[in-house]
Amino acid sequence: MSFRHIAIIGLGLLGGSIGLAVAARLPGTTTSGFDADPAVRQRARERQLTGTIHETAAEAVAGADLVILCVPVGAMGRAAQDIADALGPDCLVSDVGSSKQSISDALAQALPGHCVIPAHPVAGTENSGPDAGFAELFAQRWCIITPPEGADPDRVKALVQFWEELGAMVECMDAEHHDRVLAVTSHIPHLIAYTIVGTASDLEIVTRSEVIKFSAGGFRDFTRIAASDPTMWRDVFLNNRDAVLEMLDRFLNDLDLMREAIRAGDGDTMFDLFSRTRSIRRSIVALGQDDARPDFGRKDHAGTGMQPN
Amino acid sequence: MSFRHIAIIGLGLLGGSIGLAVAARLPGTTTSGFDADPAVRQRARERQLTGTIHETAAEAVAGADLVILCVPVGAMGRAAQDIADALGPDCLVSDVGSSKQSISDALAQALPGHCVIPAHPVAGTENSGPDAGFAELFAQRWCIITPPEGADPDRVKALVQFWEELGAMVECMDAEHHDRVLAVTSHIPHLIAYTIVGTASDLEIVTRSEVIKFSAGGFRDFTRIAASDPTMWRDVFLNNRDAVLEMLDRFLNDLDLMREAIRAGDGDTMFDLFSRTRSIRRSIVALGQDDARPDFGRKDHAGTGMQPN
Ligand SMILES: NC(=O)c1ccc[n+]([C@@H]2O[C@H](COP(=O)([O-])OP(=O)(O)OC[C@H]3O[C@@H](n4cnc5c(N)ncnc54)[C@H](OP(=O)(O)O)[C@@H]3O)[C@@H](O)[C@H]2O)c1
Ligand SMILES: NC(=O)c1ccc[n+]([C@@H]2O[C@H](COP(=O)([O-])OP(=O)(O)OC[C@H]3O[C@@H](n4cnc5c(N)ncnc54)[C@H](OP(=O)(O)O)[C@@H]3O)[C@@H](O)[C@H]2O)c1
Repeated sequence: MSFRHIAIIGLGLLGGSIGLAVAARLPGTTTSGFDADPAVRQRARERQLTGTIHETAAEAVAGADLVILCVPVGAMGRAAQDIADALGPDCLVSDVGSSKQSISDALAQALPGHCVIPAHPVAGTENSGPDAGFAELFAQRWCIITPPEGADPDRVKALVQFWEELGAMVECMDAEHHDRVLAVTSHIPHLIAYTIVGTASDLEIVTRSEVIKFSAGGFRDFTRIAASDPTMWRDVFLNNRDAVLEMLDRFLNDLDLMREAIRAGDGDTMFDLFSRTRSIRRSIVALGQDDARPDFGRKDHAGTGMQPN
Repeated sequence: MSFRHIAIIGLGLLGGSIGLAVAARLPGTTTSGFDADPAVRQRARERQLTGTIHETAAEAVAGADLVILCVPVGAMGRAAQDIADALGPDCLVSDVGSSKQSISDALAQALPGHCVIPAHPVAGTENSGPDAGFAELFAQRWCIITPPEGADPDRVKALVQFWEELGAMVECMDAEHHDRVLAVTSHIPHLIAYTIVGTASDLEIVTRSEVIKFSAGGFRDFTRIAASDPTMWRDVFLNNRDAVLEMLDRFLNDLDLMREAIRAGDGDTMFDLFSRTRSIRRSIVALGQDDARPDFGRKDHAGTGMQPN
């Protein structure tokens, strides 16, 4: 069973990309959209992010057999309430939020009697808003689906198929495990990046101008991640607190061991860690989850004889 | 005054890139090279990283008016000893090491009576070895020169000019300040990246396979940095201990504040930090120190309709 009409609530990076991907890959499927921000709706119309764009969420979901909530994690409950009365009885409701346990609870509470199957495509960029989306965002990326206990297997299958049709690979797991996995692979990396960029900005002994000029030694990579949307990330940390704190403690523990090694001049401990970490990158590149080109194939060296692509 | 003959000791990423850059940009200058590893010398010959490649360091530096040591930080003193007797009296000795105070001391001790002016081009990739170099590595990147007290201004000027001719922008500062600046913009980012990749690899509750699959949420960026050369980085942390520990304590302090904010559900503190960190990225991109394309312009989404370049 595939979906005939998909409503997208929230037309930023994720919502816009889904709309464009459906248009590019599923010609038989129509889409409608809504965003709380009139300026976003206007821009979404210009970019044709969804087939129709509506002035209320209720209008947008009328007649849909799949609704995907693409709003910040903390706005999911509210967005669900806004559509509750307008949903058709057989409509499947899903989302793309970056944490899953709290959203699962919020959606179940806001939509009693409706079929809700949360999801999280692990794909994004540092940009947000209606100009950020592109049709290929999900290609070769994983989408995690977290079916609640007792979810209708046919509905789960239809949602899996939908994400596969957008180019994604799908894995199902429970929401609690999702939140732990993403704490490691996404939330802690963002927390660290935001923090070190903050630390570097606040030093007196090293100026901001020096930090900027000499950022090519590694720091600049962190600034990309730390340029991500503040609302989105605040909501992630408010909603995935336990898993984030658990993984943060593991990291701090390991960092403490490295600090002791540096203090003691223990080169062997350093060399051991620095050697172990290479293989995981090789696997990530081998599995198509990152670009193999050195330095991500950055094109920021002037001149013509660029580094090999 | 420009250099007529440049000898390069160590023919990996840095040494190879200098050789290729001189060939591309300074047609009137000849180069000679040496590497301790015969296999590296062989590959350097095939890639013509320098005009001639010699079997000893002493042969390589004969007749040179500039020698650049491009070996790991911990090998600088030894490399300097190996050339001490073969250096012409007017030859300038420089290097590219990632820390500067300890190298400055080691070179001064190994080469009494010779003119030594240390330098550090803030440019690199995660790759090392004789296949990693490319002529444009230094283009649009900063090179920091740390002239010792009393250094001959004409010699400093010549070295500045040399790096500018390779496409770099140059700034002079003292070695101590260099080591603090680089601790923030390079060494701590590498330490954090190595550590979080190690933490993620060692978890039981989240498998290695999950970490790899779901790495596109941020983690994969850290794995690129953590794939850097273990010897190089061990030497950096052994040789820039004080500045690294000082900056690490600042970072840990700030991370502790964020952990408390997460624990307390203090969204305002999070939002405040996450908003402040965006402007530094804008400046880095505006000053040509990073690629402006979203997600570094990665080309790892399958299909044709790629994300905008
Ligand atoms: N960015 C990523 O890399 C990424 C990756 C995977 C998953 N996600 C998840 O995807 C979701 C959306 O993220 P995004 O990056 O697409 O954010 P975005 O670009 O900021 O788009 C979200 C849009 O939703 C609107 N909105 C907020 N509350 C709403 C409501 N109640 N009803 C309708 N529209 C509402 C926002 O308007 P206002 O700006 O006016 O609030 C905004 O235009 C989040 O849950 C995030 O965790 C993000
Ligand atoms: N990689 C970066 O991003 C970067 C950026 C800026 C500065 N640097 C600095 O540049 C220097 C070189 O780094 P790299 O990335 O070019 O390293 P690399 O690719 O590993 O090259 C270093 C080469 O030097 C050789 N070597 C070691 N001891 C030697 C000796 N005594 N005499 C002659 N050759 C010797 C090594 O051979 P073996 O492998 O057999 O030891 C190796 O082939 C380091 O000091 C580093 O801190 C690196």
